[in-house]
Amino acid sequence: MYSFASDYLEGACPEVLEELVRTNTLQTPGYGLDLFCDAAADKIRSVIEKEDVDVHFITGGTPANVLAMCLLRPYEAVICVDSGHINVHETGAVEATGHKILAVPGTDGKISAQAIRSICLQHTDEHMVHPKMVFLSEATEYGTIYTKKELEEIRKACDENGLYLYLDGARIANAMCAEGNDLTLSEIARLTDIFYIGGTKNGALLGEAMVICHPDLKPNFRFLIKQHCSMLAKGRIIGVQFNKLFENDLYLKNAENANRMAQTIKKALLKNGYEMFIDSPTNQIFPILDDALVEELRKDYEFLTWSKYDDTHTVIRLVCSWATNKEAVQGFCEKIERYTR
Amino acid sequence: MYSFASDYLEGACPEVLEELVRTNTLQTPGYGLDLFCDAAADKIRSVIEKEDVDVHFITGGTPANVLAMCLLRPYEAVICVDSGHINVHETGAVEATGHKILAVPGTDGKISAQAIRSICLQHTDEHMVHPKMVFLSEATEYGTIYTKKELEEIRKACDENGLYLYLDGARIANAMCAEGNDLTLSEIARLTDIFYIGGTKNGALLGEAMVICHPDLKPNFRFLIKQHCSMLAKGRIIGVQFNKLFENDLYLKNAENANRMAQTIKKALLKNGYEMFIDSPTNQIFPILDDALVEELRKDYEFLTWSKYDDTHTVIRLVCSWATNKEAVQGFCEKIERYTR
Amino acid sequence: MYSFASDYLEGACPEVLEELVRTNTLQTPGYGLDLFCDAAADKIRSVIEKEDVDVHFITGGTPANVLAMCLLRPYEAVICVDSGHINVHETGAVEATGHKILAVPGTDGKISAQAIRSICLQHTDEHMVHPKMVFLSEATEYGTIYTKKELEEIRKACDENGLYLYLDGARIANAMCAEGNDLTLSEIARLTDIFYIGGTKNGALLGEAMVICHPDLKPNFRFLIKQHCSMLAKGRIIGVQFNKLFENDLYLKNAENANRMAQTIKKALLKNGYEMFIDSPTNQIFPILDDALVEELRKDYEFLTWSKYDDTHTVIRLVCSWATNKEAVQGFCEKIERYTR
Amino acid sequence: MYSFASDYLEGACPEVLEELVRTNTLQTPGYGLDLFCDAAADKIRSVIEKEDVDVHFITGGTPANVLAMCLLRPYEAVICVDSGHINVHETGAVEATGHKILAVPGTDGKISAQAIRSICLQHTDEHMVHPKMVFLSEATEYGTIYTKKELEEIRKACDENGLYLYLDGARIANAMCAEGNDLTLSEIARLTDIFYIGGTKNGALLGEAMVICHPDLKPNFRFLIKQHCSMLAKGRIIGVQFNKLFENDLYLKNAENANRMAQTIKKALLKNGYEMFIDSPTNQIFPILDDALVEELRKDYEFLTWSKYDDTHTVIRLVCSWATNKEAVQGFCEKIERYTR
Repeated sequence: MYSFASDYLEGACPEVLEELVRTNTLQTPGYGLDLFCDAAADKIRSVIEKEDVDVHFITGGTPANVLAMCLLRPYEAVICVDSGHINVHETGAVEATGHKILAVPGTDGKISAQAIRSICLQHTDEHMVHPKMVFLSEATEYGTIYTKKELEEIRKACDENGLYLYLDGARIANAMCAEGNDLTLSEIARLTDIFYIGGTKNGALLGEAMVICHPDLKPNFRFLIKQHCSMLAKGRIIGVQFNKLFENDLYLKNAENANRMAQTIKKALLKNGYEMFIDSPTNQIFPILDDALVEELRKDYEFLTWSKYDDTHTVIRLVCSWATNKEAVQGFCEKIERYTR
Repeated sequence: MYSFASDYLEGACPEVLEELVRTNTLQTPGYGLDLFCDAAADKIRSVIEKEDVDVHFITGGTPANVLAMCLLRPYEAVICVDSGHINVHETGAVEATGHKILAVPGTDGKISAQAIRSICLQHTDEHMVHPKMVFLSEATEYGTIYTKKELEEIRKACDENGLYLYLDGARIANAMCAEGNDLTLSEIARLTDIFYIGGTKNGALLGEAMVICHPDLKPNFRFLIKQHCSMLAKGRIIGVQFNKLFENDLYLKNAENANRMAQTIKKALLKNGYEMFIDSPTNQIFPILDDALVEELRKDYEFLTWSKYDDTHTVIRLVCSWATNKEAVQGFCEKIERYTR
Repeated sequence: MYSFASDYLEGACPEVLEELVRTNTLQTPGYGLDLFCDAAADKIRSVIEKEDVDVHFITGGTPANVLAMCLLRPYEAVICVDSGHINVHETGAVEATGHKILAVPGTDGKISAQAIRSICLQHTDEHMVHPKMVFLSEATEYGTIYTKKELEEIRKACDENGLYLYLDGARIANAMCAEGNDLTLSEIARLTDIFYIGGTKNGALLGEAMVICHPDLKPNFRFLIKQHCSMLAKGRIIGVQFNKLFENDLYLKNAENANRMAQTIKKALLKNGYEMFIDSPTNQIFPILDDALVEELRKDYEFLTWSKYDDTHTVIRLVCSWATNKEAVQGFCEKIERYTR
Repeated sequence: MYSFASDYLEGACPEVLEELVRTNTLQTPGYGLDLFCDAAADKIRSVIEKEDVDVHFITGGTPANVLAMCLLRPYEAVICVDSGHINVHETGAVEATGHKILAVPGTDGKISAQAIRSICLQHTDEHMVHPKMVFLSEATEYGTIYTKKELEEIRKACDENGLYLYLDGARIANAMCAEGNDLTLSEIARLTDIFYIGGTKNGALLGEAMVICHPDLKPNFRFLIKQHCSMLAKGRIIGVQFNKLFENDLYLKNAENANRMAQTIKKALLKNGYEMFIDSPTNQIFPILDDALVEELRKDYEFLTWSKYDDTHTVIRLVCSWATNKEAVQGFCEKIERYTR
């Protein structure tokens, strides 16, 4: 049995694990104030080509999102597509900090500048919340990615309306090395006010790197991290991992494997006549399969049922990661081929 | 330079680290729903001799404390000594969930049944918060421990006033193997409604094991964990570590080393005529030293200044852990001896 | 200039005002623990034919809604139509208490049992909030009312899913005396778990009467009222007003005038060939008028623009109250007639 | 039976009540955006001799305090004497908004510059909350008042530590006309960043006037009022009352009666050999009486037991208001005299 259920099925990628072992007995100060965190932050600043950013290491994606929302005043709200992670899959963690999510319809998991402008037009007085931040994911929850033009247009809509732009980068490395991507981390740092680079889903045991670009959002951020349960006593274990991930582009290599494996399956499926529910160029794919094939595949593989497509077809989700091995993918493709002929 | 600044200066103890490496490439479901978490929970149930408890693995101590407070109704408050961790060193994380802490004076970091009764008597109507939980730490923030009689008396005060009893066990293993301790984990499970067993300060990279004894506190706890930023996608990394820590009493062995090292220093200090600010039998000691000695020690050792004692003396805090090595302790003791003669 | 902008343009209805004057110098205990509040609660119990309910007097509608949501656990959510007052017009007050609103599409401002069932089906695990309460308004924000059958069906959907049913009755009196209404306050008390009877929009200076039917929701409610800014030191001023409103059915008489005035205008509009955007039988009407007529009416009358209907037509909102006088309504109708011929 | 239990036993003072009656049927916009609120705000600006302040009308004292605390960032805390209203008697309303109260010991209900400096020194890093506001009451919960010198010293301590100064003026008028007072409303507006002028306890049915002096605290305050349950649909009823209270110094005349009545009783008690527990010059007094006298007084008068003084003596609290009449006070004094001789 092999699982394509998520990109957090295994532990850390070998290089990261070795680094954790290598540095294990060194004594360092706690709470992220160590040399590894500092070095990792410097490497990130170098990659994004921006020196004047604050970098913090956070325990996970939900914590990172929550912390970003904590930058808002009590009556300020965040705009997000209805399929956004904070709106659906974080057990109301944003609302638990007191902030409303203004959910707008999206296309393939993406928010549009138009939707942002429209919701701002509707919020006119103190009887309604005050939109102040836009949340988006890159890659999205549907595996899709933003074009440079789309992101610039969103930035423009934010500027027109006095909104901060926050980017959830749990799978940002997958986006950066996706076919068709025309954005860089440097451009993302220029176009957003705050974003995070995901570690958990890209080869780390845990941890995300929050990058704060807008000067108004920087002060006292460590108070928020501590208060919102997102600071580790042994904070260095996230620093150690990111320090390695940003050495020799390991974070990109990990993501490339994830994308390549998923796209290999996609190509095999397309070749055999299957269609995708959403056309995603990253490490998540959403094929529409006939129910019998799904049943057959479940004998050897684990994966998520995404939704029923029609009476005889189902959309499934297949996810690959840095750890997905060629043999498993090959086996899966062969099974598809055998079934289809 | 060797540091006695805290018990979270290094990574994981060797056995735990090896187990993380050994299990690294296994595929498991996420979010703590894996075999390692299950096995670790079973081992904990066995040690505490109580089958009907829920065990959850949490990212850290502040998250664990916050989750316990989230079990309260909005107007319910938690009673805690003024030196309690939630009252001083968690950046208002409990208040951030909406709950008031009713701080009461303590003795050597310990709360008394009397203080609990007294605060309950003062809270009589709906213009004041409603005390509903008692928070205590074992070992305390001052390294002291509760006697069985004290804990039973506190339980009685809780029962009289309809209060839940919550125990922060960040250093519970240090308490369990302290000289003079007459409590067991099994008795703690019997006397409290909810408590956690600390991993971070006892050989794990991160993670604490929350044990819920009272049936009313069990339902839907995983919703709280997720909502309050305390659930890891790769939750298994905490399960793996606790599974190892509860194999062959490793958690006790780690704590024993920590205590032994600290008490060795204490004895050397006492022998050389120094006094302790607080008499603690665990891995934290608080000697009163003359300022010149403190300055001298700082040349080779790192540690915390606790408080000024008088014009020429300072209280310092020395903390040992599973990782503290004999040689460092011996060197420290020798330096004391050399200086004093 | 006469205003049809809202039903809170004037102070109190004469009978209520006189009662405030008559009782002004009596000494009473504070915070709603007075004879007037007691008497008013008794009258309400009598009208709803239910002795075993708790009645509390609250400063306003938003406070009442917030208090109901505070009965939920942190991870529990409330289901509401997207046009619901708590979702749109309370500045995120519900989210400010930490709870997510699950907005569902409605019809003419009404939620359906089907929508409730559907949202419950989608919320299956701890990564999502847990639906626990349904919010509805009677009359709705669109002036429409629920039939007995609809409310019974909603109750059934709630029972199937373990949901509390909360009814915002800011305009409940208007619903009760609307043409076509087949519900009574007594039935509403039977079918809901908690609801409030509006005073502010029905002849009081301020104040709403919260009625708690479900025994689990009753304990310590006064703690919530105080904590959430909704308790008056001179609480008796709400009791005095409700005591009068529930004497000789004054609350119904006030609402009857409000409805009659609005429906008189509606009939005049229909007679002159205008259509309604929503067909509401209460004190709010939403006619579709050509823009020139709207402009003409604005010379003498104030009212809200609801939305643009098409290039040459606008939907306006006209609201009447206990205070709306016949002459003003007659004048408005005549103006319509004059313009139309 | 006559009650000295509080200063909110009756409704409104006659002038205010008449004004409510006189203006009752006028149509005004809702939510405090009416001419009465504007006029009242202007009168307040004139009295405090400061044009550049924002004035908002709030439903009560707890709401006003909560709103002030909502101006803080999540990790920021408010410093307050342990006897402060927000710390004891508001059911944790401040903590319910997420903020910690740093309680410090006071003298006769007053906070000192020294206590503020001391608590700031102790809060040094992100593991603790960040002190950002000082709360004080004028007059205090013990009926005492600040001298100009004390308030200036507190202001200085605030400036040194980057703290906002907030003053709870529920009984500010009583302070202003107390014997020995050397402060004016104008000086209070100069020395504080935000404060409120109490209406509820000084002749209004309900309502307080929040005055925001510091420009950083002004933006979007109405969003907070709405979100935190403190905005009335018929907001004009607070404006009408304050408009009257600030006509011909009615607010001072009301407070003068309250003070005079209380101080008359105090003098009679002192003359008869009784001592005061706290020496307060306003409308609350705290005499130490022998238990038999207390019992005797209870036959004709209601009042609060403050605390047991010793085995045979009790401290009681007597409160007078604008409504307290001479005859009642005279009767009380005579009873004291009769009993004592």
